[in-house]
Amino acid sequence: MNETINTILRRRSVRCFRPDPAGQSELEAILDAGRYAPSAMNQQPWHFTVIRNPELLRKLEENCKTAFLESSVEALREIARQEGFCVFYHAPLMVIISGDPGAIAAQYDCTLAMENMMLAATSLGLGSCWTHAVMMFQATEKGKAIFRELGVVFPEGYQPYAAAVFGWPAEPYPETPLKKTDCITFLD
Amino acid sequence: MNETINTILRRRSVRCFRPDPAGQSELEAILDAGRYAPSAMNQQPWHFTVIRNPELLRKLEENCKTAFLESSVEALREIARQEGFCVFYHAPLMVIISGDPGAIAAQYDCTLAMENMMLAATSLGLGSCWTHAVMMFQATEKGKAIFRELGVVFPEGYQPYAAAVFGWPAEPYPETPLKKTDCITFLD
Repeated sequence: MNETINTILRRRSVRCFRPDPAGQSELEAILDAGRYAPSAMNQQPWHFTVIRNPELLRKLEENCKTAFLESSVEALREIARQEGFCVFYHAPLMVIISGDPGAIAAQYDCTLAMENMMLAATSLGLGSCWTHAVMMFQATEKGKAIFRELGVVFPEGYQPYAAAVFGWPAEPYPETPLKKTDCITFLD
Repeated sequence: MNETINTILRRRSVRCFRPDPAGQSELEAILDAGRYAPSAMNQQPWHFTVIRNPELLRKLEENCKTAFLESSVEALREIARQEGFCVFYHAPLMVIISGDPGAIAAQYDCTLAMENMMLAATSLGLGSCWTHAVMMFQATEKGKAIFRELGVVFPEGYQPYAAAVFGWPAEPYPETPLKKTDCITFLD
């Protein structure tokens, strides 16, 4: 086993953050990791929007949470109804990766980039959590309007394909949940 | 900089492989890396199909290449028309991650898993290349029929969301292509 594989295996979704943001050097390393992801035909059809403004994060969170509250998935509605639930987990930093829907594989490319970023964060001691509510909310007309209203705009024609929050974990890493093992077929 | 970030930055799409496959221990480490990816609500809605049968790989390749030849993207058609072009790059191993379309975010989950696998491979000295032709081909009726005919079947209702080839690089890693730098916005 090596350090990279160790990082991959110990990465966890962190849902409890310290209020102080990551330093600029950590943030730049995380963004570099994203920019070095593979992309179809090396199109790099992505843009990284880094949100650190606490007031903006708060307003965005309030709105994105409605995507969970109005989801067709009961488990998501249930989580969102819990008292004090914050769909951004009070993290001091969010990155949204938007992509060009006209590219060969924008959703794939942006997702690959975000996994690089979450692993880079883990390797630096930072926590991260994929934030699906951003894409769910932005997929609605109301969501698009609120994003514009809040000034969270993307390059012309781009749409958000990946979002995650980042920050220093406020607690020790949670235990790794059970991972399925009966999910592999060999065709030899 | 640490070893994980170094791995992320030096990962390249490898397109020239030695014929000898990765060992079982390397393969298992790569699959573990995939299984430890994040997934929405920890659903792990994935299945890993590992293809090492050379004859099966050859037949699958011949068919998947038609997805490039018939693509609406001229750049893909042009590549596929090149003499001797092999869309699997003669790699001795392919992994297809199929997912449950009824899960919250199957395409995302499977993609995150594949990035983990490509990074784990890199950390072990192995090369990898995302193989979009598999998803392109399987999205067609002809493709679905050929997959079934060849015995490349997935769990009931699952569909392929990510595919990549793996193997020992036959040449030194290619140079990293230029990466965009003007793709970041800070909202502070």
